[in-house]
Amino acid sequence: MIEELMKQLGSEKVSMNETELTRHSQDESCHPGVEPAVICFPESRSDIEIILQIAQEQHVPVTAYGAGTGLEGGSIPVHGGIILNTERMKRIIDFSPEDFTVTVEPGVTRKELNESINKHGLMFPNDPGADASIGGMVSTNASGTTAVRYGSMREQILDLEVVLADGRVIHTGSRAKKSSSGYNLSGLIAGSEGTLGIVSSITLKLHGIPEHTIAARCTFPTAKACAEAARLVLLHDIPVMRLELVDAVSVGEVNRFGGYQFPEKHSLFFEFAGSKKTVEDEAGLVEELMRDAQCEDWEVAADSLERARIWKARHELSYAYRHTSGKEVLGGDVCVPVSRLPELVDYSRELAEDAHMKAGVFGHVGDGNFHTLIVYDPKKPEEQKKAEQILERLAIKAIDSGGTCTGEHGVGIGKKKFQKREHGEALEIMKEIKQLFDPDGILNPGKIFE
Amino acid sequence: MIEELMKQLGSEKVSMNETELTRHSQDESCHPGVEPAVICFPESRSDIEIILQIAQEQHVPVTAYGAGTGLEGGSIPVHGGIILNTERMKRIIDFSPEDFTVTVEPGVTRKELNESINKHGLMFPNDPGADASIGGMVSTNASGTTAVRYGSMREQILDLEVVLADGRVIHTGSRAKKSSSGYNLSGLIAGSEGTLGIVSSITLKLHGIPEHTIAARCTFPTAKACAEAARLVLLHDIPVMRLELVDAVSVGEVNRFGGYQFPEKHSLFFEFAGSKKTVEDEAGLVEELMRDAQCEDWEVAADSLERARIWKARHELSYAYRHTSGKEVLGGDVCVPVSRLPELVDYSRELAEDAHMKAGVFGHVGDGNFHTLIVYDPKKPEEQKKAEQILERLAIKAIDSGGTCTGEHGVGIGKKKFQKREHGEALEIMKEIKQLFDPDGILNPGKIFE
Ligand SMILES: Cc1cc2nc3c(=O)[nH]c(=O)nc-3n(C[C@H](O)[C@H](O)[C@H](O)COP(=O)(O)OP(=O)(O)OC[C@H]3O[C@@H](n4cnc5c(N)ncnc54)[C@H](O)[C@@H]3O)c2cc1C
Ligand SMILES: Cc1cc2nc3c(=O)[nH]c(=O)nc-3n(C[C@H](O)[C@H](O)[C@H](O)COP(=O)(O)OP(=O)(O)OC[C@H]3O[C@@H](n4cnc5c(N)ncnc54)[C@H](O)[C@@H]3O)c2cc1C
Repeated sequence: MIEELMKQLGSEKVSMNETELTRHSQDESCHPGVEPAVICFPESRSDIEIILQIAQEQHVPVTAYGAGTGLEGGSIPVHGGIILNTERMKRIIDFSPEDFTVTVEPGVTRKELNESINKHGLMFPNDPGADASIGGMVSTNASGTTAVRYGSMREQILDLEVVLADGRVIHTGSRAKKSSSGYNLSGLIAGSEGTLGIVSSITLKLHGIPEHTIAARCTFPTAKACAEAARLVLLHDIPVMRLELVDAVSVGEVNRFGGYQFPEKHSLFFEFAGSKKTVEDEAGLVEELMRDAQCEDWEVAADSLERARIWKARHELSYAYRHTSGKEVLGGDVCVPVSRLPELVDYSRELAEDAHMKAGVFGHVGDGNFHTLIVYDPKKPEEQKKAEQILERLAIKAIDSGGTCTGEHGVGIGKKKFQKREHGEALEIMKEIKQLFDPDGILNPGKIFE
Repeated sequence: MIEELMKQLGSEKVSMNETELTRHSQDESCHPGVEPAVICFPESRSDIEIILQIAQEQHVPVTAYGAGTGLEGGSIPVHGGIILNTERMKRIIDFSPEDFTVTVEPGVTRKELNESINKHGLMFPNDPGADASIGGMVSTNASGTTAVRYGSMREQILDLEVVLADGRVIHTGSRAKKSSSGYNLSGLIAGSEGTLGIVSSITLKLHGIPEHTIAARCTFPTAKACAEAARLVLLHDIPVMRLELVDAVSVGEVNRFGGYQFPEKHSLFFEFAGSKKTVEDEAGLVEELMRDAQCEDWEVAADSLERARIWKARHELSYAYRHTSGKEVLGGDVCVPVSRLPELVDYSRELAEDAHMKAGVFGHVGDGNFHTLIVYDPKKPEEQKKAEQILERLAIKAIDSGGTCTGEHGVGIGKKKFQKREHGEALEIMKEIKQLFDPDGILNPGKIFE
């Protein structure tokens, strides 16, 4: 298989270097690493076709690897085989500012994309914090801090080019903003975590860069009170750009990690963006709402430096936890109807406290989506066990509350066990679709389904 | 088969009455009618299960029928068999104003839904003009005048309950606003025109009713100039509520139909909605843009009566054409990247004029989606032929311009012939999915695929 790959791709696109094998055994999750047999670095769609053809002929698993920032082990090659790393596919294939669209290869990262289009007054808003690849973001249906305004990745997609397991290449859409023509394959491939095909190009909607931005924060006595206050903003249909909950423990964590001095209290972080007048109105209205909800303080960032600092801190949060020396973290990613949010946030804090585990609760509360990070000592298996139990109870409660076990990180390895409970009979249909697209099971086996 | 239906459903839910057979042979399109063998009126999900079971056992086609307002013959039972009419399924199963969600049975119409929720300050914005059923709107992925702001039906769906051909019942989502859990079946069923399953309940996102609304209109010397002006509004990222093009011929048509006195010129109709201040700013900005683009006039509706009149007229437009006595209409529904819109609008006017056919061009230009209605005399087959040729050339040009042959009406019967050109290899995948969901081909056979 490796000889064949070298012959057909050229040896410079194939690696079995030790460092590369180690790097590709893991993503940013704490699922146990597994080394692939070989790593391929396709430089074009036809390279991807060659890799899939060889894999198909020789019955070898192929796991796509974007930037490896996934949090559910999606790109860990649990059954070995080939890693297909898209990092050399960084071309911007088409940029049409007049249509607000761009077509990119899957290895382009979110920041790279924005660097090349921001100067034209346009932006790609989807922001998971990490500098993920566009191919990876499509494949996990990523969202992040701005989804409250723009929706998840799925809503940004106009067209995908996908190489299927049997070598066929399809386009799932067009450059039209909407369509009622045929079945919606874009939405099906988005979020399928490389189990139905390899995404070889992506056409995305873009947005104008807002003229004016305001950042603000306020604190409340409990995390539950924060969640309740966040709901008020939604009820008033205010199109906030970002609306994040960060609990007191997490504020402390990020203060220490990044040298900030935010008050170590349960906080809401806001961003408003649009025309100057509109944004000022919105911020004013939200301040009123927060004061009515009895926030302890309300602070608007004095300038753009201060504003950048707030969001830098928010984005460092997850890293702050993940890089506590000698510790590991396990994370939850539930999403529930907003009316259940205060209760769920409370429940997750309670579970952690009852178990005497250090835990942070934060997330995209504007969507009813939040993360619970539990810190444990990897040398103490009983701690890991306890962390797992907490997250399991939380996921189950979220599903039973009409929500989902994963709002944005994907199923990967960690959320497989909740799929039956969440989807019921529909899980069988999903398996049949998997079987249809990939009858030999070469595409990222061991993910999503048990 | 009919005996079995009567026995299991009860005879009051089964009809072979002549008037009913005629009514169900047609939708609002001009595709030739075909009578079903029998019409069933299920009153619950379990009735739907019974119907599908009998159809499956006896290999009889089942075609779902919502309000019959479809424009592509989607609900015409071209192979006879059973019509499954959802008009008795009108329960609001759950209304959660605190979550902005509602769960309804498929026979509830758009207006009925709004009547029952508007008093709580909430609305369901999707508006195809006709009083379609929610089940039908899901199944064609309908959109209409407000899609420029809220997106198509697919974007409004949180969860669908679907009865599959083999009798299994699945839920495709949850009540959470977003999810990365498993494959996106909601999006797949939406727009599948009753060919993959029967939708038995729908959970939708709702929105707050805007505090303030402004309607305005302006005219330009050419339809192309209207389309160019519409693009300007999009480039400025102004969240208009509605943005419609109506060409001069169509304004004339609606004036005569409804007794209006709008200037019979190529026009843009606008609606702005939100907080009072924001809306006034938006309308002011758009007025400036339109004047810069050299509109001939700019008129803001003086009061809410005048505003209602403008949108009533816009909604009557399609009916105005469709009810010209002794005439029939054939309609196009292309959607293209907005930069191609002026050219396509121009092309469609040109095609009609060259063929000396009376035609109107109007539509949701904020999405790049417009309709071309060609009026012909059904007693002159050569006229119908010419109308078909015009729409065929237009659809092909739209596809070749990176667009789609149907932005919102669906494929039904009329757009089948363009599917291969538009989807290429992906059409095979769609057929395989159809085969997977409905191996015996009992669900709405003869639609979408040749
Ligand atoms: C600090 C931190 C914060 C984060 N915050 C968020 C957040 O707020 N919101 C959020 O949604 N996520 C968040 N994430 C998770 C992560 O950034 C996303 O899941 C992202 O989408 C992963 O992209 P990637 O390029 O790193 O993909 P990878 O991790 O490399 O892969 C992810 C999955 O996609 C598949 N895949 C990758 N490329 C392709 C392709 N071309 N074709 C088919 N399949 C492919 C892989 O096989 C795998 O299953 C965060 C991660 C970190 C480390
Ligand atoms: C004057 C006029 C203006 C219009 N303007 C617009 C517009 O602006 N935008 C737009 O999108 N449409 C428009 N339409 C078209 C029409 O209103 C839409 O296509 C609407 O979605 C059809 O809904 P219905 O309930 O009438 O469905 P039907 O016409 O009864 O059925 C449509 C399709 O859905 C299937 N179906 C119905 N119910 C179910 C179910 N429960 N489960 C599975 N399949 C089902 C049917 O089999 C059929 O294939 C217009 C129509 C008219 C007459």
